[in-house]
Amino acid sequence: MLFEKNDRIIFMGDSVTDCGRKRPVGEGLAEGVGAGYVRTIESFLNVYYPELNLRITNMGISGNTIAHLQDRWQTDILDLNPDWVSILIGVNDVWRQFDEPAIPESAVQPEEFEAIYRELIEKTQDGVKGIILITPHFYERYKQDPMRTRLDEYGSIVKKLAKEYGCLFIDTQTVFDQFMENHYAAYLSADRVHPNYAGRTLLAITILKAIGFDFGRL
Amino acid sequence: MLFEKNDRIIFMGDSVTDCGRKRPVGEGLAEGVGAGYVRTIESFLNVYYPELNLRITNMGISGNTIAHLQDRWQTDILDLNPDWVSILIGVNDVWRQFDEPAIPESAVQPEEFEAIYRELIEKTQDGVKGIILITPHFYERYKQDPMRTRLDEYGSIVKKLAKEYGCLFIDTQTVFDQFMENHYAAYLSADRVHPNYAGRTLLAITILKAIGFDFGRL
Amino acid sequence: MLFEKNDRIIFMGDSVTDCGRKRPVGEGLAEGVGAGYVRTIESFLNVYYPELNLRITNMGISGNTIAHLQDRWQTDILDLNPDWVSILIGVNDVWRQFDEPAIPESAVQPEEFEAIYRELIEKTQDGVKGIILITPHFYERYKQDPMRTRLDEYGSIVKKLAKEYGCLFIDTQTVFDQFMENHYAAYLSADRVHPNYAGRTLLAITILKAIGFDFGRL
Amino acid sequence: MLFEKNDRIIFMGDSVTDCGRKRPVGEGLAEGVGAGYVRTIESFLNVYYPELNLRITNMGISGNTIAHLQDRWQTDILDLNPDWVSILIGVNDVWRQFDEPAIPESAVQPEEFEAIYRELIEKTQDGVKGIILITPHFYERYKQDPMRTRLDEYGSIVKKLAKEYGCLFIDTQTVFDQFMENHYAAYLSADRVHPNYAGRTLLAITILKAIGFDFGRL
Amino acid sequence: MLFEKNDRIIFMGDSVTDCGRKRPVGEGLAEGVGAGYVRTIESFLNVYYPELNLRITNMGISGNTIAHLQDRWQTDILDLNPDWVSILIGVNDVWRQFDEPAIPESAVQPEEFEAIYRELIEKTQDGVKGIILITPHFYERYKQDPMRTRLDEYGSIVKKLAKEYGCLFIDTQTVFDQFMENHYAAYLSADRVHPNYAGRTLLAITILKAIGFDFGRL
Amino acid sequence: MLFEKNDRIIFMGDSVTDCGRKRPVGEGLAEGVGAGYVRTIESFLNVYYPELNLRITNMGISGNTIAHLQDRWQTDILDLNPDWVSILIGVNDVWRQFDEPAIPESAVQPEEFEAIYRELIEKTQDGVKGIILITPHFYERYKQDPMRTRLDEYGSIVKKLAKEYGCLFIDTQTVFDQFMENHYAAYLSADRVHPNYAGRTLLAITILKAIGFDFGRL
Amino acid sequence: MLFEKNDRIIFMGDSVTDCGRKRPVGEGLAEGVGAGYVRTIESFLNVYYPELNLRITNMGISGNTIAHLQDRWQTDILDLNPDWVSILIGVNDVWRQFDEPAIPESAVQPEEFEAIYRELIEKTQDGVKGIILITPHFYERYKQDPMRTRLDEYGSIVKKLAKEYGCLFIDTQTVFDQFMENHYAAYLSADRVHPNYAGRTLLAITILKAIGFDFGRL
Amino acid sequence: MLFEKNDRIIFMGDSVTDCGRKRPVGEGLAEGVGAGYVRTIESFLNVYYPELNLRITNMGISGNTIAHLQDRWQTDILDLNPDWVSILIGVNDVWRQFDEPAIPESAVQPEEFEAIYRELIEKTQDGVKGIILITPHFYERYKQDPMRTRLDEYGSIVKKLAKEYGCLFIDTQTVFDQFMENHYAAYLSADRVHPNYAGRTLLAITILKAIGFDFGRL
Repeated sequence: MLFEKNDRIIFMGDSVTDCGRKRPVGEGLAEGVGAGYVRTIESFLNVYYPELNLRITNMGISGNTIAHLQDRWQTDILDLNPDWVSILIGVNDVWRQFDEPAIPESAVQPEEFEAIYRELIEKTQDGVKGIILITPHFYERYKQDPMRTRLDEYGSIVKKLAKEYGCLFIDTQTVFDQFMENHYAAYLSADRVHPNYAGRTLLAITILKAIGFDFGRL
Repeated sequence: MLFEKNDRIIFMGDSVTDCGRKRPVGEGLAEGVGAGYVRTIESFLNVYYPELNLRITNMGISGNTIAHLQDRWQTDILDLNPDWVSILIGVNDVWRQFDEPAIPESAVQPEEFEAIYRELIEKTQDGVKGIILITPHFYERYKQDPMRTRLDEYGSIVKKLAKEYGCLFIDTQTVFDQFMENHYAAYLSADRVHPNYAGRTLLAITILKAIGFDFGRL
Repeated sequence: MLFEKNDRIIFMGDSVTDCGRKRPVGEGLAEGVGAGYVRTIESFLNVYYPELNLRITNMGISGNTIAHLQDRWQTDILDLNPDWVSILIGVNDVWRQFDEPAIPESAVQPEEFEAIYRELIEKTQDGVKGIILITPHFYERYKQDPMRTRLDEYGSIVKKLAKEYGCLFIDTQTVFDQFMENHYAAYLSADRVHPNYAGRTLLAITILKAIGFDFGRL
Repeated sequence: MLFEKNDRIIFMGDSVTDCGRKRPVGEGLAEGVGAGYVRTIESFLNVYYPELNLRITNMGISGNTIAHLQDRWQTDILDLNPDWVSILIGVNDVWRQFDEPAIPESAVQPEEFEAIYRELIEKTQDGVKGIILITPHFYERYKQDPMRTRLDEYGSIVKKLAKEYGCLFIDTQTVFDQFMENHYAAYLSADRVHPNYAGRTLLAITILKAIGFDFGRL
Repeated sequence: MLFEKNDRIIFMGDSVTDCGRKRPVGEGLAEGVGAGYVRTIESFLNVYYPELNLRITNMGISGNTIAHLQDRWQTDILDLNPDWVSILIGVNDVWRQFDEPAIPESAVQPEEFEAIYRELIEKTQDGVKGIILITPHFYERYKQDPMRTRLDEYGSIVKKLAKEYGCLFIDTQTVFDQFMENHYAAYLSADRVHPNYAGRTLLAITILKAIGFDFGRL
Repeated sequence: MLFEKNDRIIFMGDSVTDCGRKRPVGEGLAEGVGAGYVRTIESFLNVYYPELNLRITNMGISGNTIAHLQDRWQTDILDLNPDWVSILIGVNDVWRQFDEPAIPESAVQPEEFEAIYRELIEKTQDGVKGIILITPHFYERYKQDPMRTRLDEYGSIVKKLAKEYGCLFIDTQTVFDQFMENHYAAYLSADRVHPNYAGRTLLAITILKAIGFDFGRL
Repeated sequence: MLFEKNDRIIFMGDSVTDCGRKRPVGEGLAEGVGAGYVRTIESFLNVYYPELNLRITNMGISGNTIAHLQDRWQTDILDLNPDWVSILIGVNDVWRQFDEPAIPESAVQPEEFEAIYRELIEKTQDGVKGIILITPHFYERYKQDPMRTRLDEYGSIVKKLAKEYGCLFIDTQTVFDQFMENHYAAYLSADRVHPNYAGRTLLAITILKAIGFDFGRL
Repeated sequence: MLFEKNDRIIFMGDSVTDCGRKRPVGEGLAEGVGAGYVRTIESFLNVYYPELNLRITNMGISGNTIAHLQDRWQTDILDLNPDWVSILIGVNDVWRQFDEPAIPESAVQPEEFEAIYRELIEKTQDGVKGIILITPHFYERYKQDPMRTRLDEYGSIVKKLAKEYGCLFIDTQTVFDQFMENHYAAYLSADRVHPNYAGRTLLAITILKAIGFDFGRL
């Protein structure tokens, strides 16, 4: 398994990550890590690997684009001294191009997305054991859908950067696409952006498998 | 214009119609008719045709399928003595087949949909000046999308019944499809089911045009 | 039509404009532009002219007089770089003279009204494509009513300034007067100051027609 | 003074009377009689005539027309065994004709108003020491205003009935008209229907003077 | 009558004065002056002397002693430029000696009370037309009651200062004592400190009479 | 000590007893018995005599007179099968004579008080081990105070009935009088009716001592 | 895996099961099945076995003992026609013996527990594919703890009944005991009764494994 | 009795002390000192020793460890000039080691606990009459329970420091252990950390006895 004893892992992102996590720091008892995929990951790690004593911190904020992450990277990531950083960002960067097209600063274009992403990785990589890059995803199986097409561009950037910087890459879009071959999108998400509990669980399992979690251990 | 002096028009439906209308009867001052397409229709009728003194009543209830309409048709339509009844129903009948497939009674299958719809029209037609049938619609342009395909079946039933019973038929799905040829679905709806204010306005205009509203009159 | 592709239009005013718009900047998804005439204008522009990609921003604040606008003109207008500014102000400047006569600083006298208005136009005109001046109005048909008489003085100032500075002038009071020839004020407003949904719609249509909106286009 | 030791006086009416009175019976400590003219009357009677031990009960309900009073006359008046009944009703009977013209049952036409009023007086007069009839009023000085003209018809009915049945008649409209000769309506009411604290006080004083209250007594 | 055209009168005090007045400045429409004796005074002045255009401001704050008044005298009195200042303070200065005896700084001893009161008068007298000093009072008729005895000391200081500085002096305690000769304290106040609406009205009338208000004028 | 193993003791009364107890039955975990003297009694019994396993139930309701107790005696006392019943009632029966004199049915006169009290005792005595009668009390040391004088009449009735029926009699008024010889009423109660925490504690200790509680046991 | 296509499984129990599930029936979108172990089970079944289309219903109610289940068994289990029923009950039956010992009817003694449990199984077994019996558990590793000892009696009854009636038996207490050999109880539960998210997850996994869930399938 | 006339005693601690006390300073009327053991102590001192006029202040804050006390010692203790300081701290310092083991800074290790405790005593001892040290306690009778064992280490530190600095030492753990010999922990606390009203009362009595309170005095 990727994580080691006493590691601190921070999950950074938007509303898919946030899900009501505690402010200012999303960790600890009760609803600390929110009700999304981070909770499932934390609970499974706690139950399967209690001896590792892993510290899971959720720093997602609903509505964020990568430009918002940039603004709070120092306080919300670097100052917290993580061992691992997981990043799941990009859907708002794209969505705003379609639902608020007249407010250009609410979205982030691909070039800027890549530039900021690069900056965040470079600021972070020396101080951590590893960075996990997760593709932003859309519960839309039809690849010619304009927002899906656009989001795939961002996913490709994430993939490229993961390769370039040697980060762990998790291609969640492909996992969801496979699932949606037999099951309709509404099974995972009411609005094709925010996963329901089934969607959150599939997302958590995908990440757990990517980090080498052993479900047969218990 | 279709409506005549002192006519009462009831708009029946689900959340697309409801939009926070007053209970038990959705009419009158303040937020009586809710914040959806019915408000726009009422406001435009009030401003363009004040001399007609039209009474607009919104009886939509969020989450309803046609089976719910059947349960409350006597109290919520017939007892109110409308001159015109507008019906916009069906999206929940279909959606529940995709997001709650394990709860079969939450959805309505096409045969039952048609049977109930037929019953409601027959119970109503003799007492009114006319019935307006509006297709349920989905802000999804891709016609091979399984839920879109399924919903189109229901739209076809509505069309068939309109023809059979001589009701005014309004094919909103086609209007939205044309609009979405150039503009993405998120411009009209965040979740492809509930219209935002642009979507509500396009819906209202479509209905107003279908009833012979004259925008050049003012 | 007056507006061009990608233009940003700011609607400035008091409670007639505000109607629950988002703070600090009234724009964007959901209830961004509030529930008043600005919403109707935005929705119609979005539906009829989607290719223009117009950015509508509502900066009205309930209870404001022109003295309040002066205080926040830099942050709430100039810093936002509009292409067009629409101003609808003056009813509180007058109303406070009648309902709080013992608190003189709560109202604005005509000379001060004109001086501030002039200052705001001069600060703004060079940086924008145009300014739209709308008369403050009162849903009171009887012109000898003292508050109506007083408000007409302010309307005349607005008209004079529009002519002097070459602004687009919209005489809403005259439109409402014509409507009220056949329909009582309560049809448009419960308290003769705040329009209900019919009043808001008539106001929106009046503005849309003044800017060359083509209802026959759809 | 009209009232005698241990008399119970019930004030019946609409929102002008109600003003947040206690349910189901508007009397007693704290906010029992509401924050309107009934409170001022009760407080002054308590302070000037404490030895009379008068029981003041407010049974007004916001939005009521005389048709609503008819529905609840048995429980809300007769069952409470008053010595005096004061009635102030009619403005909603008229207002709804102007702001909800398409909902005819929300208003009461003059013939029905007179018939119900007559019925209420006849049901009541034998069991009480006296009935006080107060004209519905409108804070609109201009008598040609259509709603004012209409309301005056109802005031005339009240006057006629008071004379016919020997009730104490209080012509509040005339008092307000005199006051408004020098002071604008907004000084007494924001929307010309609901009195502010100045309006409520003038209404209370008018009633107190009509019942022979002696301000020089203290 | 004491007050002249356009005078501003500020009522300063504790919870007896406050009664929910608006913050930061207690004046204007709606609940501006609170629900206590200041509202009755303002309403009666508005109705009987509208031509005087008096500005009534309530600056009382619940729980205040004279030490609190001292802290906020500059901002809450002097900066507001009153023509008249009415002061009703002292009951908390005494009460805290009896209900929180272990927290000495919560109360104010007589010497300190006199010293601060003197300072406030001297800071104020040159800039105003007059100062009105009202005795703090206790709805306790039995003068040997220890808190009553103690409060009377403070009343005597107020009386002495009024004479010394030529202020208008209003001895409300004596008025309440006379009323309580025939009517029990609970008729005016539930807890002997906070007047109910009868108590507030008697207090307002006492002040109105002291300033030469003419109830026979209307 | 009076109570025996597994006894159930019900404390009946008004707001002095109620203090936020649970509905419909005031017992059990958390705030079951409210925040008044019953909680202190229960806590001390639980800690000093845990082996007795006593069941303490608070059935007081704020604002009650003995007439209210009569209405609910069957359901709130007899149906609960108590071993002991403690009754502390009477202050509202008297208070309403002073603060709502015009509403006679809100109070209970002495003859009716005695008659109902007698009825309640007789209905109860055969089914229980004993009844505890507590004098209603007033935190007013001056015995000539009219309400105190009146309340003492009720206390005398309670004393007479306790003797007549052989009930345990607790004269709380005398205990409070002794305490108030050196300490002012406000030390025990803000409004002379509702005890603060010191007053509640003195009341609890008085009852505990009367039932033979041994403070030296722990 | 135990469950077959289209099976309906009802989870019955107390607060450990409830966790905020929807009323009256705990199923469907959003928070239908609550935030406890039932959600984890439902999410995993949905994601791993979507083709089975399983219907998961949570009917737990906080605070329930088996006596409460008996009261609502007809409406809450039998009327819903489940294919499988899972029962997790008993901790309140025991806890009340320790925290409310004086209120005997709040708890259920072992004989009554067994008798009711037997009755519920017999009423149910013929109409379902199977019944799942889960031991009530206590996050207390020390078996001599009196409440743990007591609860183990109830667990033994459950085990005996499972064997006798051929139900699937899940011994969660043993699973928690093994986990607590290395990790302190607070890691799973703050109060040793209500599991936190780690405890809920361990419970869900235990049940999933017992029903033959294949984690290697995805 | 330990305390003397006019002494101020501050109770410092965590949630066991806090119990809803007033902010920023927990003293005075109403809910000033919260609903925990401090209220019982204050009420008993007020009733038994009113002539001492003791000032009781509660400065506990829920969730605090000794590290939090250190941060606020200057403002919350020293600046308030107490005569006596009572400290009850440590359970969170230990609990976080068991329920949030992955967040090391949420707990305090024994060496740091002792060092900070020593610093706080040394900063305080010269300015006060005495310091009262209370052992943190756990409603867990089984001494081999790991958290109990750990907490006992902290209790030993408190005992050692009390001896070394001559503080009054109160060994509450031993008192609770004796009580729990015959009565189960749930009788005093639902979660073994937060005392219920019985637990709070036993705690208060223990402290009162330690300071020489004489229950036989009244």
